[in-house]
Amino acid sequence: MGNIDFLHGGNIYEIEKKYKRAILDFSANINPLGLPRQVKKALYKNFERILHYPDCNAPELVQKIAGYWRINAQNILLGNGSAELIYLIVNAFKPKTVLIPAPTFSEYERAAKSVRAKVRFLRLEENSSFRLDSPRPNPDKADMFFLCHPNNPTGNFILDNCGEIEQLANRLVVVDEAFMDFLPQQEKHSMVYRAIKSKKVAVLRTFTKMFALPGLRIGYLIAHKDTVSKLRKHQCPWNTNSLAQLAAEIVLEDEEYVKESVCLVEKERKFLSNEIAKCGRFEPYSSVANFLFIKIKGANTTSSLLRKRLIQKGILIRDCANFRGLNNKFIRVAVRSHNENLKLVEALKEAI
Amino acid sequence: MGNIDFLHGGNIYEIEKKYKRAILDFSANINPLGLPRQVKKALYKNFERILHYPDCNAPELVQKIAGYWRINAQNILLGNGSAELIYLIVNAFKPKTVLIPAPTFSEYERAAKSVRAKVRFLRLEENSSFRLDSPRPNPDKADMFFLCHPNNPTGNFILDNCGEIEQLANRLVVVDEAFMDFLPQQEKHSMVYRAIKSKKVAVLRTFTKMFALPGLRIGYLIAHKDTVSKLRKHQCPWNTNSLAQLAAEIVLEDEEYVKESVCLVEKERKFLSNEIAKCGRFEPYSSVANFLFIKIKGANTTSSLLRKRLIQKGILIRDCANFRGLNNKFIRVAVRSHNENLKLVEALKEAI
Repeated sequence: MGNIDFLHGGNIYEIEKKYKRAILDFSANINPLGLPRQVKKALYKNFERILHYPDCNAPELVQKIAGYWRINAQNILLGNGSAELIYLIVNAFKPKTVLIPAPTFSEYERAAKSVRAKVRFLRLEENSSFRLDSPRPNPDKADMFFLCHPNNPTGNFILDNCGEIEQLANRLVVVDEAFMDFLPQQEKHSMVYRAIKSKKVAVLRTFTKMFALPGLRIGYLIAHKDTVSKLRKHQCPWNTNSLAQLAAEIVLEDEEYVKESVCLVEKERKFLSNEIAKCGRFEPYSSVANFLFIKIKGANTTSSLLRKRLIQKGILIRDCANFRGLNNKFIRVAVRSHNENLKLVEALKEAI
Repeated sequence: MGNIDFLHGGNIYEIEKKYKRAILDFSANINPLGLPRQVKKALYKNFERILHYPDCNAPELVQKIAGYWRINAQNILLGNGSAELIYLIVNAFKPKTVLIPAPTFSEYERAAKSVRAKVRFLRLEENSSFRLDSPRPNPDKADMFFLCHPNNPTGNFILDNCGEIEQLANRLVVVDEAFMDFLPQQEKHSMVYRAIKSKKVAVLRTFTKMFALPGLRIGYLIAHKDTVSKLRKHQCPWNTNSLAQLAAEIVLEDEEYVKESVCLVEKERKFLSNEIAKCGRFEPYSSVANFLFIKIKGANTTSSLLRKRLIQKGILIRDCANFRGLNNKFIRVAVRSHNENLKLVEALKEAI
């Protein structure tokens, strides 16, 4: 990126090189179960696929996604990770104004600014636990609204009630459900079925988080067929690679893996949250995702200092100071396996 | 793509499914040597890379590309195949007018239209062997010019003399060198060293053709550092996947593979061209790339009919009728291994 303002978690290669040691990465929010078992085998077996252009339409994968949601294939658009889709949306819709909650995932702002949209921020307040009551009629509405649902980095829903979500923008509300897979009953919260009917709602989904595939790059958008058709005209061909398509097809069928992951994350999130709270120096926020958002109590330690101390112990956390709307008192940690979480708790106790 | 006007070669999955048989693909122009040997081994060994986000900056790969060309890393921008870079360029520069030779690679037109640029075409004439004499001062110049160098599908340089290439556009001349690697002395023709100095020239390069990696998606742009910096601001993060980055690093060091490929392609292109010409029913154009552009002589056979007949024989060629500026009398075939080329010649003889 070369852009200091938009640094993300997960830049493990850079950190390991800089500090010359192996690092346990709590900064990226990836499923602690790791890659579903069949993926490696299938990719190796079908390795010669890289010798051919990927199928632009990827009909098998799109059909499997359609089957998974019981929706129509024409409501689905694949992306080279959902990051590609965020940029595609702003390039296709060219919003003049974009409204973005703060704090949230920084790429919405970066994408909006890349098309010279005027960006306004909807400040989430600490004393409201970084939530909004409900979508309020806004006299000064924007063309586009980005809703990270549940929100990154705060780990919970910004809105409990999405009944009037279309009111949030004049043209399109983009609902990023990157972490929705980790909810036991996601259909209660997902906007997927709203999106296929409403031209004002589009949902982003990814294989990255639940299926531990960040390096392969594959995600998708669910929206009204007219929205999909409009976006497709702006999309470059061969955007998803052959191995990512194949991996996505395989993991979509692995219901057991998803169930096991949801259980593990729920259990470990509770454990991690309790243990971290017990230190007395941290305040973890309630989370529905596979990560915890944590406030550092007391005046002496900053998020940046804590991050540096933990790297010395071989652990990488996400310093949230560069999220718009936050200060140097917030960190984010992924929920990992039990033993890894124990290591994090010990390290946090020593580092604070 | 779902867009009939922009169908490409290489859609092998669809064809094999439709015709229920294995197909020898002469429609995509991929190195007949196949994947460099070390790639599969290295990817398997480093498979766990897909568990981490790709490094956005990919400093090792960029450094290797810089070393390969002996240029500076700040002149290089990686892309998810050069297709991504074509769309990135039009999104970042927003040209009002784009000048495109015809026939050429169709994505320049599609990309230009996606940003609502007014597209004008520079017709390459059959009686000039689809070449232009030299960049002529154009009173009606466009903001952007796309030059496929050597040209696809015609297989040779449109311009022999690129001395005044900057005159072709007001803002940027995009030189797509996708097939340049197959020239024994590419440094005589490449615009790479012009591009790093001139803000009006940008060069696209790809790993797809020479290194037989179309399924992995990796390419790069070489340009003035200000152009790279401008484009980077519009690019989505994590655009190149971890395995593609790794494969590209490995193949860049494989000088032997490149030498062997260049020799093989030169020898087989000559063989294939001679044999096809001998039939008396085809007129192959002179080519410097790893494919041949061929005119069908006589009134009875069309490119579409020929393609259908060859599929029945298990061979896929590129029907060029949907290239702007061509009619149903032109086909394109990749140069493959000797035995495969023999099969193509036999099949062409039978099908005509």
